[in-house]
Amino acid sequence: MSTLQVAGSKSLMLFSGRAYPQLADEIAEHIGVTVTATTARDFANGETFIKSDESVRGSDSFVIQSFTTPINQWMMETLILIDSLKRASAKRITVVAPFYPYARQDKKHRGREPISARLVADLFKTAGADRLMSVDLHTAQIQGFFDGPVDHLFALPLLAGHVRRKYGEQDLVVVSPDTGRVRMAEQWADALGGRDIAFVHKSRSFDKANEVVANRVVGEVAGRCCLLIDDMIDTGGSIKKAGDLLFAEGATDVVIAATHGVFSPPATDELKNSTVSEVIVTNTLPIRPEQTFDKLTVLSIAPLLAQAIKAVFEDGSVTSLFAGRS
Amino acid sequence: MSTLQVAGSKSLMLFSGRAYPQLADEIAEHIGVTVTATTARDFANGETFIKSDESVRGSDSFVIQSFTTPINQWMMETLILIDSLKRASAKRITVVAPFYPYARQDKKHRGREPISARLVADLFKTAGADRLMSVDLHTAQIQGFFDGPVDHLFALPLLAGHVRRKYGEQDLVVVSPDTGRVRMAEQWADALGGRDIAFVHKSRSFDKANEVVANRVVGEVAGRCCLLIDDMIDTGGSIKKAGDLLFAEGATDVVIAATHGVFSPPATDELKNSTVSEVIVTNTLPIRPEQTFDKLTVLSIAPLLAQAIKAVFEDGSVTSLFAGRS
Amino acid sequence: MSTLQVAGSKSLMLFSGRAYPQLADEIAEHIGVTVTATTARDFANGETFIKSDESVRGSDSFVIQSFTTPINQWMMETLILIDSLKRASAKRITVVAPFYPYARQDKKHRGREPISARLVADLFKTAGADRLMSVDLHTAQIQGFFDGPVDHLFALPLLAGHVRRKYGEQDLVVVSPDTGRVRMAEQWADALGGRDIAFVHKSRSFDKANEVVANRVVGEVAGRCCLLIDDMIDTGGSIKKAGDLLFAEGATDVVIAATHGVFSPPATDELKNSTVSEVIVTNTLPIRPEQTFDKLTVLSIAPLLAQAIKAVFEDGSVTSLFAGRS
Amino acid sequence: MSTLQVAGSKSLMLFSGRAYPQLADEIAEHIGVTVTATTARDFANGETFIKSDESVRGSDSFVIQSFTTPINQWMMETLILIDSLKRASAKRITVVAPFYPYARQDKKHRGREPISARLVADLFKTAGADRLMSVDLHTAQIQGFFDGPVDHLFALPLLAGHVRRKYGEQDLVVVSPDTGRVRMAEQWADALGGRDIAFVHKSRSFDKANEVVANRVVGEVAGRCCLLIDDMIDTGGSIKKAGDLLFAEGATDVVIAATHGVFSPPATDELKNSTVSEVIVTNTLPIRPEQTFDKLTVLSIAPLLAQAIKAVFEDGSVTSLFAGRS
Amino acid sequence: MSTLQVAGSKSLMLFSGRAYPQLADEIAEHIGVTVTATTARDFANGETFIKSDESVRGSDSFVIQSFTTPINQWMMETLILIDSLKRASAKRITVVAPFYPYARQDKKHRGREPISARLVADLFKTAGADRLMSVDLHTAQIQGFFDGPVDHLFALPLLAGHVRRKYGEQDLVVVSPDTGRVRMAEQWADALGGRDIAFVHKSRSFDKANEVVANRVVGEVAGRCCLLIDDMIDTGGSIKKAGDLLFAEGATDVVIAATHGVFSPPATDELKNSTVSEVIVTNTLPIRPEQTFDKLTVLSIAPLLAQAIKAVFEDGSVTSLFAGRS
Amino acid sequence: MSTLQVAGSKSLMLFSGRAYPQLADEIAEHIGVTVTATTARDFANGETFIKSDESVRGSDSFVIQSFTTPINQWMMETLILIDSLKRASAKRITVVAPFYPYARQDKKHRGREPISARLVADLFKTAGADRLMSVDLHTAQIQGFFDGPVDHLFALPLLAGHVRRKYGEQDLVVVSPDTGRVRMAEQWADALGGRDIAFVHKSRSFDKANEVVANRVVGEVAGRCCLLIDDMIDTGGSIKKAGDLLFAEGATDVVIAATHGVFSPPATDELKNSTVSEVIVTNTLPIRPEQTFDKLTVLSIAPLLAQAIKAVFEDGSVTSLFAGRS
Repeated sequence: MSTLQVAGSKSLMLFSGRAYPQLADEIAEHIGVTVTATTARDFANGETFIKSDESVRGSDSFVIQSFTTPINQWMMETLILIDSLKRASAKRITVVAPFYPYARQDKKHRGREPISARLVADLFKTAGADRLMSVDLHTAQIQGFFDGPVDHLFALPLLAGHVRRKYGEQDLVVVSPDTGRVRMAEQWADALGGRDIAFVHKSRSFDKANEVVANRVVGEVAGRCCLLIDDMIDTGGSIKKAGDLLFAEGATDVVIAATHGVFSPPATDELKNSTVSEVIVTNTLPIRPEQTFDKLTVLSIAPLLAQAIKAVFEDGSVTSLFAGRS
Repeated sequence: MSTLQVAGSKSLMLFSGRAYPQLADEIAEHIGVTVTATTARDFANGETFIKSDESVRGSDSFVIQSFTTPINQWMMETLILIDSLKRASAKRITVVAPFYPYARQDKKHRGREPISARLVADLFKTAGADRLMSVDLHTAQIQGFFDGPVDHLFALPLLAGHVRRKYGEQDLVVVSPDTGRVRMAEQWADALGGRDIAFVHKSRSFDKANEVVANRVVGEVAGRCCLLIDDMIDTGGSIKKAGDLLFAEGATDVVIAATHGVFSPPATDELKNSTVSEVIVTNTLPIRPEQTFDKLTVLSIAPLLAQAIKAVFEDGSVTSLFAGRS
Repeated sequence: MSTLQVAGSKSLMLFSGRAYPQLADEIAEHIGVTVTATTARDFANGETFIKSDESVRGSDSFVIQSFTTPINQWMMETLILIDSLKRASAKRITVVAPFYPYARQDKKHRGREPISARLVADLFKTAGADRLMSVDLHTAQIQGFFDGPVDHLFALPLLAGHVRRKYGEQDLVVVSPDTGRVRMAEQWADALGGRDIAFVHKSRSFDKANEVVANRVVGEVAGRCCLLIDDMIDTGGSIKKAGDLLFAEGATDVVIAATHGVFSPPATDELKNSTVSEVIVTNTLPIRPEQTFDKLTVLSIAPLLAQAIKAVFEDGSVTSLFAGRS
Repeated sequence: MSTLQVAGSKSLMLFSGRAYPQLADEIAEHIGVTVTATTARDFANGETFIKSDESVRGSDSFVIQSFTTPINQWMMETLILIDSLKRASAKRITVVAPFYPYARQDKKHRGREPISARLVADLFKTAGADRLMSVDLHTAQIQGFFDGPVDHLFALPLLAGHVRRKYGEQDLVVVSPDTGRVRMAEQWADALGGRDIAFVHKSRSFDKANEVVANRVVGEVAGRCCLLIDDMIDTGGSIKKAGDLLFAEGATDVVIAATHGVFSPPATDELKNSTVSEVIVTNTLPIRPEQTFDKLTVLSIAPLLAQAIKAVFEDGSVTSLFAGRS
Repeated sequence: MSTLQVAGSKSLMLFSGRAYPQLADEIAEHIGVTVTATTARDFANGETFIKSDESVRGSDSFVIQSFTTPINQWMMETLILIDSLKRASAKRITVVAPFYPYARQDKKHRGREPISARLVADLFKTAGADRLMSVDLHTAQIQGFFDGPVDHLFALPLLAGHVRRKYGEQDLVVVSPDTGRVRMAEQWADALGGRDIAFVHKSRSFDKANEVVANRVVGEVAGRCCLLIDDMIDTGGSIKKAGDLLFAEGATDVVIAATHGVFSPPATDELKNSTVSEVIVTNTLPIRPEQTFDKLTVLSIAPLLAQAIKAVFEDGSVTSLFAGRS
Repeated sequence: MSTLQVAGSKSLMLFSGRAYPQLADEIAEHIGVTVTATTARDFANGETFIKSDESVRGSDSFVIQSFTTPINQWMMETLILIDSLKRASAKRITVVAPFYPYARQDKKHRGREPISARLVADLFKTAGADRLMSVDLHTAQIQGFFDGPVDHLFALPLLAGHVRRKYGEQDLVVVSPDTGRVRMAEQWADALGGRDIAFVHKSRSFDKANEVVANRVVGEVAGRCCLLIDDMIDTGGSIKKAGDLLFAEGATDVVIAATHGVFSPPATDELKNSTVSEVIVTNTLPIRPEQTFDKLTVLSIAPLLAQAIKAVFEDGSVTSLFAGRS
């Protein structure tokens, strides 16, 4: 007999970096598997080591990593894990980065700047990633930075469901904290049934370059409940200021919703002490105990990611997962 | 003697596709060279042929093409010209695309869509392009689609200079025709000395997906001169509607400014008969006789491109050309 | 349980560009499937958009396109469709180009010329194509332009079968219209059972470069039925002249056979009014109503393509499809 | 029906170059298949031709070649065979090179030297190889030269088993013939149950660059049975000298063990006439009749390779095959 | 001071493989340089080593190799030399292969064949070659196999000059030895001032596949001096048979001209004893003493290569070197 | 005039990451330039940003980074800086990594391990590096991990000069702390004029895998001054133990020399309190105040790097810098 013939099969394996293993476990539970154990450690001089404890030959591997602080540490860990899976004959490797690292460096704002978001895509590819999965990319164009399939998921249905249930009866106006998120405010307004929108305009001085001379709200907010939206809350500075301004302009209430809760200092302190009534995020990034506060609501992104991973593995359509997005 | 040693030198050569040779000639004149002659023709079945009539060995070649209709024709011509220069030993090839083709297909809006703007960048690279130069990319992230240097030039200083001279004394408000260009309106407002901004909000029905139920202006426009801005005017539909809405909301005058004058039918008819007082564009795309109309002002982009090409060739800084951009 | 294991399977999907959907439908029917629906349109400024209407995840996708006029339009459409399939996670993408575009630009005839046939192969690859399938490449070396498997099919058995049935009893001589197709004439002669061959020689002037001073037939044609063969009929100029010359040299009849019926003007007019008795081609390219004429016989290439696609999908041998070729 | 769906399957195919077909046959027998027949020949001017005689579409192909003299001939044959399999639509191609060619050119010893071992890895990749399998690479870092999975097998358990059975009762000391293989001696010492180790030190002159002034044994060898180890025996010069030195230093017996028996002249003559009692190698390279001699023991590497190929094909773990290696 | 600025310069360096160093020396002399010395040797097991003896940093390096028997040996030597130059920081590397190796494997004649001529181009590229230079490629399409500039030189003017001087007064007819070189015969006919052409037709049996049943001359040769042309003479079998046939058909004399004198056995014996009056080749390949014979004329290709290398180095036009080619 | 011609020139620019700017400054001073200023910062969530403050168009850029703790931070900073230089049109980019990061992960020790040293080379390449420069790579094979020129410098002459001056008169024996550095001990022995060598052998248990049962010195050390050498000192554990063992075996003195002073805790404490008389390293890595101690001698590597960078820029030979290496 000249050839040995066997029936084909494929197997899904989940891996997790050390940034936020709880999310990977939660995803695994939804799928009905366990995360494959890895051996991971940092050497004395800071070099990272990570490898799978089980054979990955022929597997459809998903590498889940939450790009929280220290972000460069988790970047290198992810790249090294991908390299190890590639060299161990994994058949296909998908990076699951619920929060895409360096997403805000997606263009040259000035001469000689890096485009780190593109660099990150190329680094994943070079290490051996075949596909990417992410949630609410800072700009949708980042999909085009990767030379291969990108599953771009949206947290809007999840977040909007919560808002609708809790604030649906109020006179809501959706507010963008600056001019760059007005389109996103419009998508929220549509998802909430045709609400009004507004935004904060930072007026700059004509004489002194880049000096902001005034923040003004464009749109009607007086006497209404303002839903202040963004894709992420990092230091919380501008969203806090926008909240204050809305109250100053007569808003009756301010609720904040964002996909990614980065909460770099002093975000937690600022928001905890502010007059906003609720801050809603998902757990694309871990919320450490010292980052949490009373007004904070964290919705789990794990079911959405589990559904998408399963669909990708089974060659099912992921498009249905985007239903909430116009 | 073992080696032959000669002093190095470098030479700049300009090439033009057939879409809009006048622009290339105008650029060449500003630099003080002539466009190198090419032999170009289409075979009976539509296959394109193009080659340089002079030796290009060791040259720093710039390929200027205006991506106007029929855009696929000019794409293939550009790729073939790049291939011929690469094979003829040009040292470096820069594609000068004042209007970047397929820029609006820069992300997947829905499942299974292409990202043609990334594809275009890869096609240029594959054919042999080392660098790109363009004006006012539809989204700045397109810079990251190309794996190499991109010189991204801005027409704002040119357009804003004209507006300032002609309308600077009026009570100007900068208006974005939709929620996607509010950031751009803010840049215009800054460039004009701290003006107010407004935008048009398309409210969608909660019941019927994607059905726009109302267009509303957010921001104050009554009794003011509205500067309606965009990166391009294609069929002119939405900008025309926005202009009408502004007049309906009490605007005293409406002026339209955009970098790229695509003017696909029925743009010219719509704008010619509208009540806007002036439409200002640059010649990144040719304005054919049948596209022109009384209210249209076309500013030449050639000096800016000439300056940038010369700076690139001489390894000078191009950043100073971006001075008008915050 | 650590991994999720499922049985593997694979699915064939056919896609068609808009150049000649009837051919794709005909192929699909032979295979016993339907062509997957796509959404395709051209924007006002000529930019093309195309996407699959169904999920293609994990599929073995075949993209069928007939590269007829306007050829650059169909090139870009094909590239964009490939890009969309790649980004939608198709497992393998095969471009089925019955007529390979730009095949005649397969070498530099003079300095600084492009090699567009190689460029086309690289463009397909860059967009995401894994494999190519084509019929009667202008030169067989084009197989080597693509970095991957190429299924090169031959129409000779199909065409020769028709000729044998209709003219097998006659005193046939196979004639090449120029010196470049004599090898091909030999293959025809063998397929028809050891016929004689002849060719037309364009004698050039010694004094004036490239001026043809005389066309002469080399080989014996007087009193015989001439089968004039070529790989394609484009404007029909040289094949028409060759036919006239053969009659002038005493041929009793002239029959023309070629794989690709490009029929650019004035091909149809020239051939319709000529004294040749039959022109035989396949439908690798669509024959539009205004291109057709009484003497024209069009044989369908669909069964051959269907057989090859099925064999490729099922990992069967395609070599048996080449049986007619020595 | 839109798609044609069939169950997936995969088939293993073995191919052999002409350098040492017996090894491939032996491997095939262990797996329970036969080596697929090829047509291979050299043209009059030395150009090589090779192709599979059966369809390889969709197969998991393993190309077995023993890189013996004339090594460049077998390199080119292997590359051409890989190219032919790639173009014939093999699904995955693994090069099985029991002896990795050019392994000793793995770094620049001096300025301007090639790193041919890296070049070889790139050539395999360029031709179309997806994976490599090899035994006892000259340096383990060569795994990193290939951009993909490398299965690195070890002959130590095989060789050590033989030594243990035959010399286990003696007072063994493991000796490295130079300073570069001391680590390897340590691995042998461990495998044999904690034996002592020693090495030969070539002392160089301070005055005359690179002139070796003395060979000295470091470690205790007097009155003991010396197991002299290396990864390969090429011309046998240094191992012969080391053997002589060990006897001169009082060794009671010398046994030589190495994975790769290159045996370039005058290796066989030198060893045949030496006082060592046994030379043990594997058949990663063919031992031609004129190379063999009484004291030579050749252990077959085929079972190890067969086991590894089967495991790779079935996505089983190969790691267990490395058990003997700490 | 922030940067160190120096004037640029460039230097040409010539390197030679060991296949035919005399040709490299002759080229060097024409340019006015010497070939840079290399250290080259073969290790006992056949592995090749080669490196430059001088620094090559920043140089424009030309690697000259004549691909004669043993061709695989010279292939690997060339690849290793290129690798060493790349790693030693040569700025640009051009492979000068007067005879392109594996040129006849430029397509798949049957299923599962390699396309070794494309493979060779990719191997050169992978090793580090930026450019290629060659003479009379077996098929011009091979230019398209390399992803970069190819300088394709023609020996026709050189050979035709000799023929014109010696046989210009005779009644010459240019004859192709088979149907594949008729186009080339036409180019010769033009270069000699509008001569007639003829060819040999191998008629195959209808019943037995591939069995040639008759060789017939198509065209008029009786009473004329036949110039039998080809691109190369390998074993000489078919050209010898063609010569015999021409005499049998009444030719008064037969002269053979070809660019590449491969002269594999029994070419020399066959031609030496034949009735042809002269065999004319160039020295793209070395003519070893045992290959030469009285009737053989060898014209030097060195001046043409020297001129081309110099032009490439100085960014001059090489196109003028093609003047003899229509 | 068709082309603009100017004389070529080239300019050297030095850049430094933030890990150890003092080294870059020291190198710059030796060359006679200043390090180009950059803007570098870390965003609140740990994302790094870095760009040049001056135009780098056309420059020959050298990026100096010392890969000390936190090493992943400096990896990402280096990659981002390279990306920014590439996109800003630097002509050539050389990474100067005196200590190559992840060098110890240069092979798979066990199944499924990453080869991070190769990954690092690929990451540099992907970001845009054309060349690498490093000092005393952990294994010389790492040169082959990078697809381009690597300048591999040696600190041995620098370190050995110091040892010779201070301990040349003593009865020195060079000791390797384990079996992996015996070759390196040999090179030291040669450099010091033909000294004896010895090494420490870790004997492992036959019963319990990997358990070291005894450390023994192989070679004569009693009554002599031991020079204990290694490529780097990380936690100092094994070198400390080796030192103790040497004293226990009767050594009169122990001196430690290594190129890279990583000094991860508890290295400094261990060595400070040990009985060794001197520890000699270079400053390829910064020695922070808390890492230093009385017995520590730090020799500057800056002159060597400055010389090499200058030679690379001026296309001079770097080989002469390796003079001390046999």
